[in-house]
Amino acid sequence: MGAGEFDLIARIRARVATRADVVLGIGDDAALLAPPPGRQLVVTADTLNDGVHFPRGTSPVDIGWKALAVNLSDLASMGAEPAWCTLSLSLPQSDPAWIEGFLDGFLDLAGQHDIALVGGDTTRGPLSIAVTAMGLVEPGRALRRDGARVGDEVWVTGTLGDAAGGLALLDREPVPALRARLDRPTPRVAAGRALAGIATACVDVSDGLLADLGHVCARSHVAARIDVDALPASAALMEVIGEADRIALQASGGDDYELCFTAPADAGADIGAVSAQLGLRITRIGRIVAGEGVHPVDAKSQPWSSPRRGYDHFAEQ
Amino acid sequence: MGAGEFDLIARIRARVATRADVVLGIGDDAALLAPPPGRQLVVTADTLNDGVHFPRGTSPVDIGWKALAVNLSDLASMGAEPAWCTLSLSLPQSDPAWIEGFLDGFLDLAGQHDIALVGGDTTRGPLSIAVTAMGLVEPGRALRRDGARVGDEVWVTGTLGDAAGGLALLDREPVPALRARLDRPTPRVAAGRALAGIATACVDVSDGLLADLGHVCARSHVAARIDVDALPASAALMEVIGEADRIALQASGGDDYELCFTAPADAGADIGAVSAQLGLRITRIGRIVAGEGVHPVDAKSQPWSSPRRGYDHFAEQ
Repeated sequence: MGAGEFDLIARIRARVATRADVVLGIGDDAALLAPPPGRQLVVTADTLNDGVHFPRGTSPVDIGWKALAVNLSDLASMGAEPAWCTLSLSLPQSDPAWIEGFLDGFLDLAGQHDIALVGGDTTRGPLSIAVTAMGLVEPGRALRRDGARVGDEVWVTGTLGDAAGGLALLDREPVPALRARLDRPTPRVAAGRALAGIATACVDVSDGLLADLGHVCARSHVAARIDVDALPASAALMEVIGEADRIALQASGGDDYELCFTAPADAGADIGAVSAQLGLRITRIGRIVAGEGVHPVDAKSQPWSSPRRGYDHFAEQ
Repeated sequence: MGAGEFDLIARIRARVATRADVVLGIGDDAALLAPPPGRQLVVTADTLNDGVHFPRGTSPVDIGWKALAVNLSDLASMGAEPAWCTLSLSLPQSDPAWIEGFLDGFLDLAGQHDIALVGGDTTRGPLSIAVTAMGLVEPGRALRRDGARVGDEVWVTGTLGDAAGGLALLDREPVPALRARLDRPTPRVAAGRALAGIATACVDVSDGLLADLGHVCARSHVAARIDVDALPASAALMEVIGEADRIALQASGGDDYELCFTAPADAGADIGAVSAQLGLRITRIGRIVAGEGVHPVDAKSQPWSSPRRGYDHFAEQ
C-alpha cells in the first residue's frame, strides 16, 4: 500500500502494449504519435463515475473493461479503427491490487482492438475514470448521425435490453448472462468498420434505443417508425422478464452498446453479408419517414409508449 | 437549475469556436478531425479534482482556465502547437451559472491559443475536470525529456515559486499577484514553439522544479547541478516571503507551469533572442553533468536541501 503517483504510472507503463505509430508513449509530458497519411482522426471522451455508470461494488476488472468499451463503442459507431487512448484515473487511495485488476480488464480489451494506451494521469479523488479514445477513418467514410434519409431502413446489431435487465434484477435475482452485458459490454468495432460504406447514419445504444435513435433523427431532420415487437431479445432476457417489461427495457434501457444504424432499403443483402461474416445478429427494426421524433408502434401498428425514455444523468429524479 | 445533460451539452456547443480542420465537432458520437499532412500528433491528459488541484471555493472561471492551462502547458513543453481538446466534466449538480463561468475561463484561454473543444461528456459526480489536449509538431522537433546531454545548460522561463507562495499564504495573507499565478497559470505555448529546434530537452514545472527536472535527468541518464540562488523570483514573492522560505518555494513548489529546458552551451544568444521576441524572462539556472539526480547548490557551491521535494498526489501525508 501507499504506492505513490509515480509508482502507479510506472506500474501502468510496465504493462501497456505499443504500436508502430507510437513514437513516444507514457513517460514524457505528452505522447507523440505518427498518424498515417490520408486518414481522418476520430476522437471521443467518456467518463465512468462510481455508482453512476456502474453499480458500487463492481469488480475492478469489469470497471477497467467497461471504461474502455464505452469509448471503443463510440469509435465503432463512427466506423473508425481504434488507434490510441488516454486514461485519467482518479482513485480515493492507491491500491495496487485494485489497479492491477483494473488494468487486467482495460488492457485485455485494448489488446483485442490494438489500441495503445499512450498517456494520462492518476489523481487522488473519488473513483472516476475518464478515457479519451482516438481512431482513424478514411475521409468520407465516417458514420455520422446526420446521414439518415427518408426511405432508409433502421437496423440494430445484437440484442437489446440485456444490460438494463441485468441492472433491474441486480438486487433481486442476479442473472449472470445479463449482468455480463452490463459489466462487460462488447463494442461493435468490426461491425462499425464493415458498415462504413453501407450505413447512412449510425449511433451506439448507450442511453436507450429510442433516445439514441432520436439523436439521429434530430441531426438528420427525419423521423423514425420503430416496430417494438421486432426488437431483438436474448434468450436470457426472454426467460426472466415478462413481455411488456422486456419491450420497455429493449426500447429504453441503456448500456447495451449495440449499433443502431440506417441504410438504404436495397442494402439488405450487404447487411446480411456483414452479419454472416461477423456471426452477429443484425435486425431490421423500422423505417425512416418524414417528420420528426421516434415513433414506436406495436405489431398492430398502434402507438406504443414506454414508461422511461433513455437515461439523462442530470434529470430530476 | 435542473438543466439536463443534453441541455448542458447544447449550452457548451453553442459557445465553442471551431477550426478549419474540424470536420465534425460536438454533437455526434465522436469528433472528426483532418490532421494536416506531415505533422506528428502530441496528446496529453490532465485532470483537476476539487480540493486537490485547486483550493475549494476557487471561482468557476479560474477552474475553467486552469483545467485547460495545465494541458496546454504539457503541449508547450513538447514544443507543440495546440489544435483540439476534449472535456469530461463531472458535476455534483447541474448549475447553469457555474457552467457559464467555467466556460468563460476555459474558452477565453482556448481562444487565445486557437484550440477547438471538439467533444467530451458531462456526468453527475464529485466536481472533477478531465481534459485531453491534442497538438501538432513537425517530425523530429518535439521537445522530449530524454534529450539532455552533459555540458548542456539548464534554463527556466518566467519566475518560480509564485503559485506555491499564493497557496501558502491563502488563509493568512492573500497576495493577489501570487494567487493569480496559482489560479490562472500562463501556459508557455509560444516559448515552447520557439524553443523547438534550440532546446535539447524540456519539461513543464507542475510538481516543482527539482522534481520535474529530476524526470528529465532520469530519462536522459544525466544529472543536473542547479544554483538555487539563480532561480528567478517575482517582485511580489520577494516582497512577502523571506529568502530561505522563498528559495524552498522556488525549488520545490508546484503549479508554476513555467518551462524548464536544457540547451547546448552555445545556444545562449538564440535563447536571448527568444526571450526578447516574447518579452519573457528566461534564466540560466544550472548545468547538466554526468551522474544522476538533481543537485541544488547555493552561491557558495554548498549543497542545498529543501524540506519538500515536489508534490506527489499519493504520498503518505
